[in-house]
Amino acid sequence: MHLAYSYKACNAPKICRIFNEMGFLSEVVGDEFGIAEEISVPASKIIFNGPYKKREHVEKALIKNILVINVDSKEELDYINRILSKNAIKGANIGLRVRPSVSYPIAPHFGMDEELILKFAKKVIEMGANLYQIHAHIGTQITKLELYKELSEKMSNLAKKIEKEHNIELTINLGGGFALESTPEYFSRDRIPALNEYSLAISSGLNEDKEIFLEPGRTLIGPCAVLATKVISIKRPRNIGKIAIVDASYFDILSSAFLSHEVECISSGKEELLVETDVYGSSCVSADVIRVGAYLPSDLKEGDILLVKDAGAYSINISSHPMRPRPKIFILRENNEYEEVRRAFVE
Amino acid sequence: MHLAYSYKACNAPKICRIFNEMGFLSEVVGDEFGIAEEISVPASKIIFNGPYKKREHVEKALIKNILVINVDSKEELDYINRILSKNAIKGANIGLRVRPSVSYPIAPHFGMDEELILKFAKKVIEMGANLYQIHAHIGTQITKLELYKELSEKMSNLAKKIEKEHNIELTINLGGGFALESTPEYFSRDRIPALNEYSLAISSGLNEDKEIFLEPGRTLIGPCAVLATKVISIKRPRNIGKIAIVDASYFDILSSAFLSHEVECISSGKEELLVETDVYGSSCVSADVIRVGAYLPSDLKEGDILLVKDAGAYSINISSHPMRPRPKIFILRENNEYEEVRRAFVE
Repeated sequence: MHLAYSYKACNAPKICRIFNEMGFLSEVVGDEFGIAEEISVPASKIIFNGPYKKREHVEKALIKNILVINVDSKEELDYINRILSKNAIKGANIGLRVRPSVSYPIAPHFGMDEELILKFAKKVIEMGANLYQIHAHIGTQITKLELYKELSEKMSNLAKKIEKEHNIELTINLGGGFALESTPEYFSRDRIPALNEYSLAISSGLNEDKEIFLEPGRTLIGPCAVLATKVISIKRPRNIGKIAIVDASYFDILSSAFLSHEVECISSGKEELLVETDVYGSSCVSADVIRVGAYLPSDLKEGDILLVKDAGAYSINISSHPMRPRPKIFILRENNEYEEVRRAFVE
Repeated sequence: MHLAYSYKACNAPKICRIFNEMGFLSEVVGDEFGIAEEISVPASKIIFNGPYKKREHVEKALIKNILVINVDSKEELDYINRILSKNAIKGANIGLRVRPSVSYPIAPHFGMDEELILKFAKKVIEMGANLYQIHAHIGTQITKLELYKELSEKMSNLAKKIEKEHNIELTINLGGGFALESTPEYFSRDRIPALNEYSLAISSGLNEDKEIFLEPGRTLIGPCAVLATKVISIKRPRNIGKIAIVDASYFDILSSAFLSHEVECISSGKEELLVETDVYGSSCVSADVIRVGAYLPSDLKEGDILLVKDAGAYSINISSHPMRPRPKIFILRENNEYEEVRRAFVE
């Protein structure tokens, strides 16, 4: 099994470099190909995915022959064909993004239906490229193990069909989407499976030994970060419990709109009694909730510092800063040294 | 009636300056006080709102004596009291943010219940400040006129109570929240009232002549901007209609997740026939929908340019750029000259 770190969960270059140094492959989408280049990821370790790829990045990726470009559409395949001809490139590693017919609503704008995949598999081979893998990704924060079994079954059947027709060997990329155990969704009662349960579900769906690629993002970077924020006001509105307003906002951690991030107070230590407290952001937007029903010290007050846990995924790069500058972000090293982190795409 | 432009709808300084030059008051929240200073808005034209205000901004606002600071919490009032004493300031214009008990779920972290307002009104006067207004804001994209009538009734009753007790005259600030007529919500069947219907509802709730402040944002800036984007792929997935994938994403215009922005093709002019087409963004996030059910030319193809209308509100400053840099933003002047717009808070 090959593991790639999905940059989109947090694509600050210094973070991506750490995963690269740990041995993960780099899964890039959009302009993230440029980040992999910036931090000198070897071509053989780059997986290039997604419906949007900058043309100049695709050309570079083909010339360098990266691990695989997973093609999302006919237009992209046509473009690749032109580049391969123009540069007389043979054996470029091409994958095809499948929109698999599993019992879950796959976003319809990703990948291609099976019939197209079969047609384009033929075309890739005729182009003189190396059809390296088929790729699929069912979504994010998926808690239903049976979906992964179903996916891996369908993908391995599809791979078999293509392999037989063209007498080749394919790898299978099943994307990511694994849920973070410590931060359940507000509105789901599903138990969150452990990581090894996901991997068992996947292997139980395979009909033969296959090289499998997975691209986790949230589960890798999610638990690695905390958001530190200061209490600016305590309120007890009529008919509603206790509220703490903090100086961060959900624009810093949009996932708090649907995930139950744990919140801990690290300053107000005297009072042992914890009481249910709703934590709101201060952005002047009604929906700005950080956490409903956190348990915080009963003597919580202005100036206290709260930590919002598991803040690493889909926050640092997705956060916006509509009414104030974005908070500073640091990597804390084991020797207690700090290093400031910049986002990949700044203005 | 006094009209303030609510910066938070789009707080690019050049945009705020235009509204200032047109005669609107400036309603600022969070660190937006610094934007009003940057573009030299006179103190007498600034309304300072919101649960979070930087302490140094509050101090400056008190020393300059801006039009009004609407106090959101006990902690803020305590701080103001200390500043007024320290600087021996008399007659500073203070307002109080009310969490009114109207038949609509007001976000509980904004303002204070009536009992607290009565208590703090007394305190403001004892502090030697000028209790200038009471303020409330019910939400965003509100389509129910009766809510504005109810709000204006409750607020004018509350004002009367305070005026009688302290023998003063108050103004009433009813915030904004008016819906944009041209972009209904996906999930609401409510007719969107015209602006004069909102104003009639408000005046019908008043029990006497009063100076009223309103703070529209979306309705002012919403229609002033379009998002231009290029089609990168056309797909026709099994059992689903036609899909156009564009190079923008809903991270550029988050409101497309709940508002039906009109989409128009300005390049593919030959074919008169319009067909229902779902427009998806290219960010590699499942939820990245720009518009479901747009009517676009049947021969729409890669490279065509689409305009997403009414893109001015809660987009330019709230947009994030997780997987690629943010698009460029321009003001188009009447003489067809362009001028680039920067966001207020950049990194």
